Amino acid sequence: MRKSGRSEEEVLRELEEMWNSRIPYERVFSSMCTKPHPIAVKAFLLFIESNLGDFGIFPSVKELEDKVVSISAELLGIKKFCGYMTSGGTEANIQALRALRNVKRGKNFIAPKSRHFSIDKASDILGVEMKIAPLNEEYQVDVSALEEMIDENTFGIVALAGSTELGQIDPLEEISKMASECDIPVHVDAAFGAFVIPFIDELDVNFSLPSISSISGDPHKMGMSVIPSGILLFSEEKYMDAIKVRTPYLTTKHQYSLPGTRPGASAAATYAVFEHLGKEGYRKIVERCMRNTKLIIELMEELGFEPVIEPKMNIVTFEMEDIDRIREELKKRRWLVSKSLNPLGMRLVIMPHVEEENLKLFVEDLKRII
Amino acid sequence: MRKSGRSEEEVLRELEEMWNSRIPYERVFSSMCTKPHPIAVKAFLLFIESNLGDFGIFPSVKELEDKVVSISAELLGIKKFCGYMTSGGTEANIQALRALRNVKRGKNFIAPKSRHFSIDKASDILGVEMKIAPLNEEYQVDVSALEEMIDENTFGIVALAGSTELGQIDPLEEISKMASECDIPVHVDAAFGAFVIPFIDELDVNFSLPSISSISGDPHKMGMSVIPSGILLFSEEKYMDAIKVRTPYLTTKHQYSLPGTRPGASAAATYAVFEHLGKEGYRKIVERCMRNTKLIIELMEELGFEPVIEPKMNIVTFEMEDIDRIREELKKRRWLVSKSLNPLGMRLVIMPHVEEENLKLFVEDLKRII
Repeated sequence: MRKSGRSEEEVLRELEEMWNSRIPYERVFSSMCTKPHPIAVKAFLLFIESNLGDFGIFPSVKELEDKVVSISAELLGIKKFCGYMTSGGTEANIQALRALRNVKRGKNFIAPKSRHFSIDKASDILGVEMKIAPLNEEYQVDVSALEEMIDENTFGIVALAGSTELGQIDPLEEISKMASECDIPVHVDAAFGAFVIPFIDELDVNFSLPSISSISGDPHKMGMSVIPSGILLFSEEKYMDAIKVRTPYLTTKHQYSLPGTRPGASAAATYAVFEHLGKEGYRKIVERCMRNTKLIIELMEELGFEPVIEPKMNIVTFEMEDIDRIREELKKRRWLVSKSLNPLGMRLVIMPHVEEENLKLFVEDLKRII
Repeated sequence: MRKSGRSEEEVLRELEEMWNSRIPYERVFSSMCTKPHPIAVKAFLLFIESNLGDFGIFPSVKELEDKVVSISAELLGIKKFCGYMTSGGTEANIQALRALRNVKRGKNFIAPKSRHFSIDKASDILGVEMKIAPLNEEYQVDVSALEEMIDENTFGIVALAGSTELGQIDPLEEISKMASECDIPVHVDAAFGAFVIPFIDELDVNFSLPSISSISGDPHKMGMSVIPSGILLFSEEKYMDAIKVRTPYLTTKHQYSLPGTRPGASAAATYAVFEHLGKEGYRKIVERCMRNTKLIIELMEELGFEPVIEPKMNIVTFEMEDIDRIREELKKRRWLVSKSLNPLGMRLVIMPHVEEENLKLFVEDLKRII
């Protein structure tokens, strides 16, 4: 650390230069995050001092967290719930599996091959075995195969509502029915899907199913809130109790979250954007993303590429053998796309920052590269 | 979620009212967090869009994280290190113990009775046993007792540099020597102490000891950065490797952190305040906190209270049988203090937001209550 500090102007000038070295979001099709809504930023700033882990000092942030949780539950059609705001989908996955493990005192859980890598992270952290269930031709989990993998030490099943690589949705009704018969709780990873699915009528996903113990969702993805903002819902108090710890020196009695100190500003930011956009606002945004998704599919079809699945949401993947080379070449031209592994190809996430014009420019560059 | 959104003005007005319901920090002696430095807030705002978990889009945030880590290491006198920015001390404790568990494939670790509750959280999450070592009369860990608790499944020891209840520092040289002989790595929880100890010359703590595998520190405590900002240092790459996960769809190859998506803004904010204050700036702040700590001790001695230990840093605890009643009464008068359990009493954290005038007013109110 330097002995004498540098002036504010100097430090901020350095940071401005560094900030300008980024690839602007307009050229980014690889990210599930986007620019936070301006009202989320304003609300975050107002509450930036607050610690949600010590809300005796800031009682309003607890109230805001509770509102965010209940608004999310209502949005997903869930009537009976408890929950809290997480730092994001990874914490939610870890905490949900931790709750399930603790309640059942189990040793393994089953996740589909299409799971997010945070599920693998959770299995290492929690010291439990992850069994991987195969997928069907639509890249959904194969429910019969999944059922056969259940043993006496299985404490939970992970299902996806918006898979990372394809935005695919697992057959939740079928999984729930099977899980109820086998008495195994199901955690639904809806990190991406929670704030998209309710606004696409054709999807008609029922989240309020027996055996669903928990659902995760990330307002800092399609919810357009500030990073870090996530939510985790549980169907029963016993799951929250299983991850509770007493907090003697704080102004609270106990806490559920993974971090201790955590930003109250995230609760304010998320509440602000929920209230300001409302269902109509989110619907408009999602509809625009879906129009752009249809557009990119048309443009890619002209180049001879078909999407791996008919997109359920604003994620689309095209099979591509030499994705590594193509991705490199695109990066040189300042376009960022993702690599999909299963199947091997190029994944595009069509977020609110994606413009029609840029999609056309992108495809022109892609044409030159191929 | 409401169908139609509410106007920005309306939402922000509601939030302003909620924000005004807080107890202002000036009256808070219970918190290890404080108002973030204005430059940290400005820097955070500039980078608020950025995701440190996907820094291919924002390469500068990775650079900022690396600078924060190396500045912290240099501040603590550590030459050989690797590390990253965490969401705070809890993540750091979980990740450090996870790394140690994974490297040794161990089943238990030993922590002092004075440990923070996040250590208990870690032991549940990681599915390992926590053995609790007794303290000596100075409320430091009893090193001989600790040594006797080591068995063949022990993978680590936790030592404190700034205990939660007293701000006590464990005898690191003695612990390190013993740990080297027993070949057990030591994780130092310096969540509070990392950004205080280097600025109090009399303390002269050596963090660069053999057997110290990891050290945590929270810039969002005395570092005056924005929540969430933490750092975790490891002495060797093998520990980082033990908590690594591959990240196929992101612009990165792998990640070490507990969350996936995480705020690049925290790296910018922390770098900004480090650079703007420098050692001189932090020293001035710490010195003022220590003067206020001495002042409150004088004032409390006039009421007949002695500190449990001679404070090592700006945390002071006074034994008090009826702390529960006193705390309630103080809260009615809008003063927030903490309850200490071991020993039973009142803990005060004398942060930069604490003013001399308020300490005097506080003691006057306390006098009336007793």
